[in-house]
Amino acid sequence: MLRSVLAALLSTSLAAAPLSAQSTYDSVDPFIGTGGEGHTFPGAVAPFGMVQVSPDTDTTCQVRDCYGHAAGYRYDDSTIQGFSQTHFSGSGHSDLGDFLMMPVAGDTVPLDPGSAAKPDTGYRSRFSHDTEVARPGYYAVTLADSGVRAELTAGTRVGVHRYTFPAGKAAHVVLDLRSSLYDYSGKILWSSVRVRADGTITGMRETRGWAPARKLFFAIRASAPLTGHAFHNREEKIAYKGFQGPGRGRTDVAQLQGQALVAALDFGHLTRPLELKVAISGVDEDGALANLDSEVGGFDAVAAVSRTAWQQALDRVDLDAPAPMKRKVATALYHAMIAPGVFSDVDGRYRGPDDQVHKADGFTFHSTFSLWDTFRAEHPLLLLVQPEQRNRDFVKSLLASQQESPFGILPVWQFHGRETWTMIGYHAVPVIADAYLKGVRGFDTDAALAAMVKSATYGPYGGLDEYMKRGFVPIDKEPEAASKTVEYAYDDWTIARMARALGKTDIAATFDKRAANWRNSFDAKTGFLRARKSNGAFRTPFDPTAINYGSDYTEGNAWQYSWFVPQDQAAMFALLGGDKAAVAKLDAMFNYDNSKLDYSHAEDIAGLIGQYIHGNEPSHHVAYLYSYAGQPWRTQERLAQIVASQYKAAPDGLSGNDDLGQMSAWLVFTALGFYPVAPGSNQYVIGRPFVNRAALTLPNGKRFTMVADDLTDANRYVGRVTLNGRPLDRTFLRHEELMRGGELRFAMQATPNKAWGAAPSARPYSMSTAAAK
Amino acid sequence: MLRSVLAALLSTSLAAAPLSAQSTYDSVDPFIGTGGEGHTFPGAVAPFGMVQVSPDTDTTCQVRDCYGHAAGYRYDDSTIQGFSQTHFSGSGHSDLGDFLMMPVAGDTVPLDPGSAAKPDTGYRSRFSHDTEVARPGYYAVTLADSGVRAELTAGTRVGVHRYTFPAGKAAHVVLDLRSSLYDYSGKILWSSVRVRADGTITGMRETRGWAPARKLFFAIRASAPLTGHAFHNREEKIAYKGFQGPGRGRTDVAQLQGQALVAALDFGHLTRPLELKVAISGVDEDGALANLDSEVGGFDAVAAVSRTAWQQALDRVDLDAPAPMKRKVATALYHAMIAPGVFSDVDGRYRGPDDQVHKADGFTFHSTFSLWDTFRAEHPLLLLVQPEQRNRDFVKSLLASQQESPFGILPVWQFHGRETWTMIGYHAVPVIADAYLKGVRGFDTDAALAAMVKSATYGPYGGLDEYMKRGFVPIDKEPEAASKTVEYAYDDWTIARMARALGKTDIAATFDKRAANWRNSFDAKTGFLRARKSNGAFRTPFDPTAINYGSDYTEGNAWQYSWFVPQDQAAMFALLGGDKAAVAKLDAMFNYDNSKLDYSHAEDIAGLIGQYIHGNEPSHHVAYLYSYAGQPWRTQERLAQIVASQYKAAPDGLSGNDDLGQMSAWLVFTALGFYPVAPGSNQYVIGRPFVNRAALTLPNGKRFTMVADDLTDANRYVGRVTLNGRPLDRTFLRHEELMRGGELRFAMQATPNKAWGAAPSARPYSMSTAAAK
Repeated sequence: MLRSVLAALLSTSLAAAPLSAQSTYDSVDPFIGTGGEGHTFPGAVAPFGMVQVSPDTDTTCQVRDCYGHAAGYRYDDSTIQGFSQTHFSGSGHSDLGDFLMMPVAGDTVPLDPGSAAKPDTGYRSRFSHDTEVARPGYYAVTLADSGVRAELTAGTRVGVHRYTFPAGKAAHVVLDLRSSLYDYSGKILWSSVRVRADGTITGMRETRGWAPARKLFFAIRASAPLTGHAFHNREEKIAYKGFQGPGRGRTDVAQLQGQALVAALDFGHLTRPLELKVAISGVDEDGALANLDSEVGGFDAVAAVSRTAWQQALDRVDLDAPAPMKRKVATALYHAMIAPGVFSDVDGRYRGPDDQVHKADGFTFHSTFSLWDTFRAEHPLLLLVQPEQRNRDFVKSLLASQQESPFGILPVWQFHGRETWTMIGYHAVPVIADAYLKGVRGFDTDAALAAMVKSATYGPYGGLDEYMKRGFVPIDKEPEAASKTVEYAYDDWTIARMARALGKTDIAATFDKRAANWRNSFDAKTGFLRARKSNGAFRTPFDPTAINYGSDYTEGNAWQYSWFVPQDQAAMFALLGGDKAAVAKLDAMFNYDNSKLDYSHAEDIAGLIGQYIHGNEPSHHVAYLYSYAGQPWRTQERLAQIVASQYKAAPDGLSGNDDLGQMSAWLVFTALGFYPVAPGSNQYVIGRPFVNRAALTLPNGKRFTMVADDLTDANRYVGRVTLNGRPLDRTFLRHEELMRGGELRFAMQATPNKAWGAAPSARPYSMSTAAAK
Repeated sequence: MLRSVLAALLSTSLAAAPLSAQSTYDSVDPFIGTGGEGHTFPGAVAPFGMVQVSPDTDTTCQVRDCYGHAAGYRYDDSTIQGFSQTHFSGSGHSDLGDFLMMPVAGDTVPLDPGSAAKPDTGYRSRFSHDTEVARPGYYAVTLADSGVRAELTAGTRVGVHRYTFPAGKAAHVVLDLRSSLYDYSGKILWSSVRVRADGTITGMRETRGWAPARKLFFAIRASAPLTGHAFHNREEKIAYKGFQGPGRGRTDVAQLQGQALVAALDFGHLTRPLELKVAISGVDEDGALANLDSEVGGFDAVAAVSRTAWQQALDRVDLDAPAPMKRKVATALYHAMIAPGVFSDVDGRYRGPDDQVHKADGFTFHSTFSLWDTFRAEHPLLLLVQPEQRNRDFVKSLLASQQESPFGILPVWQFHGRETWTMIGYHAVPVIADAYLKGVRGFDTDAALAAMVKSATYGPYGGLDEYMKRGFVPIDKEPEAASKTVEYAYDDWTIARMARALGKTDIAATFDKRAANWRNSFDAKTGFLRARKSNGAFRTPFDPTAINYGSDYTEGNAWQYSWFVPQDQAAMFALLGGDKAAVAKLDAMFNYDNSKLDYSHAEDIAGLIGQYIHGNEPSHHVAYLYSYAGQPWRTQERLAQIVASQYKAAPDGLSGNDDLGQMSAWLVFTALGFYPVAPGSNQYVIGRPFVNRAALTLPNGKRFTMVADDLTDANRYVGRVTLNGRPLDRTFLRHEELMRGGELRFAMQATPNKAWGAAPSARPYSMSTAAAK
């Protein structure tokens, strides 16, 4: 025991010797993705933190126009409305933006934000990007209108704001409980705010947003005494007002509750910067107060802890690459370590999917599972770069959520413990299976398998009853039936994989059979995976380029979805007519002429290369599929094309929503030279590297290094691959190989090595050919 | 220790020998007060129970027209909408009516109640009073439209419904989460309902009613298996619908949440009556589930427990009186034992005034404190007829509420742990003081006194800052200033009384001084207590008969409020010009000719005898004031007049809202022959009895008996009073005398004994003359 700990420590200390002068931490640029439709935020968050303190440039949109402000901040905007405590990183839908605070200097305190067009009409302020600083766990900006320097930092459960007011001006902070991301009338179900005897401000808000009836509590403690306060209820039409509490007509009341509250907090003339420590809790105000005390000290102390935490997390991937690429990959790694975030309080309590309070026993409850996105590369990446404990917490959080779900199934798209039912599939299943198959332990595997089976057999969910009856989801009974059928089949395969590993051969057989259900959606005539009706006929008319909500497909069309058979690409290629036909079809996809198409109605469709759509997840594994046809050099070409066109070291540097780290995780894996096409297979398909060298400190403490010799823009092909000095002829890497530590070395060259990886035996796992290997 | 227990047991067993064949329990008629504006309910409740299961005849009113249905049931109505789980007993404002259930027989299940005019349009049913049975803890009715026999019973935290369906008809139950007392658009903030794996139905509702954002959870378990269910969301305009969960378009989903839910529960064809056990919790669903298990067995078992509990509670006052009077007094005693009700869960948890969950440590948290009403006679009565434990629980609940209040003050009008800020004063103060002075112990008296002082000195509440500055509440700063001034002064006196008893002479002196503040409101010119402006002048114009909201007075006028100096009636009489002038003024009040007045706009004004208004509390002590002028025989006359005109053994038997037992407690005391005019004085003013004999089993186990010899309608005067056989010349009884046990004997006669009680030394306590005694 001691020896292995010692070995781990030694490995870690080895990892601490950086490959280059600038650490991964130093290379992160949190502004990447804050323009375009990346939907990331530039503010402060700790690794997997509960709070995400960040500027909101506008929250006054109405629901249909809010898409661009999903993370509160848009790089294009010229005003800041305030700093709220919670944000998604890269979500395609949104919510949060809780407990917006804004410093106000001077004699009058505006109670409304004012508009971006007329910032002087409210507490909103102009700002210049020149004054902004952002690094992991830290953000700063100067508010031009008031002259206040605002700095933000964050611990796991605490955000700290530091506002430096211009000399001679009275300091105030507006706390606007109305402000919210994806704002609309009726969203705020209830809110309250109170000043406690010691000056701590506590309260709560319950919103009907993306998550229905989500409750969040807060506690705010300031570094200077409160010299005054005013609580206002700005609700206009109140059906029934009830009786008035203390302070009839006064605003300096100890507490106020209602649906449209805004508080003005006064601190008088300060000689030092004002620090406001803010904690949240999904449980209650006591939870928020305890969380507040969980981080010791003020701004600088919390910032230092946050900095160390980020350095430790990010420097597990030590990178050597030219500056722009290093910045992109480092930032991608950063974005991959924001969610799933901690959601249990410091005492273990959390509010679960049943809206009831539970206690996490022996684990930390994490939430914000964007599973349709993150099962692909985000979770596989975290299995490599985060401690087993973190990944075990994910699994335990998913299992606890299943236990607490009124439906008895695993989360679909969960945040703050609440299910949103967004997207399709039961992709908590591959996350758990992949974690188990890659060695994560310490959870009840029987209960896990039972939860997975339950989620895969819950009839009322997403046409599963029909799917189980017919082997496909019929489009006349359930929308997006083609996508559902193929995703269910993949998820089923991961159940079979885990069941077999656990010796549950009956379950394995059942789900192996279901894993072939994608075949029921394959239309040999068109070569596309399509939606069938209950009578078995494919739905017509059929347009493989059509993208519509409620169509045969989910956020995509036949072109993207027809490649979703990660568990058996070989069989899929065979149905297409063999390798040549498959490659031709892949090329047809990438080369498609979109000039006659208009996808402006579809929010999530961005980053198009023909019909390959990198801005959304269904395409993410597709470039790697050439390797399944024995043509890895074509994968290498496509990856160069994608990386060059879809990622920039600039605010609009993400071609689509980051989706809680999935877009970023794709880049991290791809940059390292391999990608988890089929989580559950314990294989990574080798692509081509985009960094010169990377050293990973693995969860077991071992170090795995990849080196790309002669990497230049021109040398875009892989000439040779060695693993620990020995030639690697196959186009995949086994997870066990990686975990043993060692060195993966690519020799890059300007011309393709068409022989490498061409043999059928060199190809990655496919269910139907697996027995042969 | 053992000896005293033995003595208590002996006393109790003595008490068990009834004075008459029909017990007090048997004499209760829960229909009294369900007509007129009594606002009582006929349904089932355990003594001080958490649930009050009762029929609602109509909840479809809008807020301004709901007054008559404050308790859900009106005797005049001819249809029943359903049976909800929570009700106030006699409140002047309303809320509750939570979780309405209605049995439906046959093939179709209506989802809306339909109107009283057209009951066939919904699940509502006609009914006849002939089919109704009501006794403490039990109610039954036959629903004419469906033929279902519905029975209700209640344990402390559980209600049980038993529905006997007509043979051959399928059994269903509608659970309507929209239904509420004082109904209006926007009241339901959120609700949810789910079927658990074992068939238990759980859920919650959050309402913006009399109490803002009140959360209540429920758990329902049926005696027969659920054969099907449909959960509907009937909300019409939803700003943002979010994503759909399992069962798109289906209603047999495991859970549903929203703002307008109604559930249809199916039980198929039953051969036995269907029993539904329902528990509630202010904390969470687990709380409701635990409460559900806190009562053992089914309907009959719970009904038996409830019956025993009521027999034990009611038979502590053994009554001998002619049938109508016995029925009235027994029912009054029953109505006095419904609130303040238990509100902590079986595990001690409850939701407090800060909307946070707390745990009652060593006590049972009670809520529903209608303190402006109940400090007068309801709490004093419970100090005589309930165990010390119950009264201690009241005190501890008030103190816990003060600790948890965001304002740091004692409850004003609280229910379900939530403050409503209804009415005026800080009358938790006299409740605690009276309890302490009458010997209730086992709570932190220093903390109690501190809480009382804090409540009396909290500036923002009800003009207290001005009151403390000026010695009166100025009407130009605060409405109802005259009433507030005199009630504060009384409350202050009780603080002084308790402080002195605790040896805190400083506090006693401060509040003794404040107790004289009523003088600042006395207008010598008119002889009325009036509202002053900040400049010291009385507000004009002045009409002593005017009754308006926001006037100088609270739910009354100068006539009623000018007698509110219970702590110093002697001084007040002196200011009026002496006994003769005081009696003349009292007579002027009772004899006032109202023919030119119209009070139809004032909901709470009922039960008028001239300007004496028995239907509301400010008048309640007034008839006893003749004794303070040495003319107890005039009190005796007035009491006869009041009892005859204001209480009937009929549904419209209460002349005003029962106000959570205050109207009833007045009758119980008055019937026994004495009344607590000034709680805090430890005196009861002797009036005249209305029952032949009553034996009280006191909290200390001793027995106190009152006997009225020769009591007839004609013999309405007290000729002589003896206490334990010795003549009692004074017109008051000391609490200690009562608690020692013994016999109070009245000799009734047809002519007044004007000599009895005429001497100044015979008069009850007044602050200014107390030193002389």
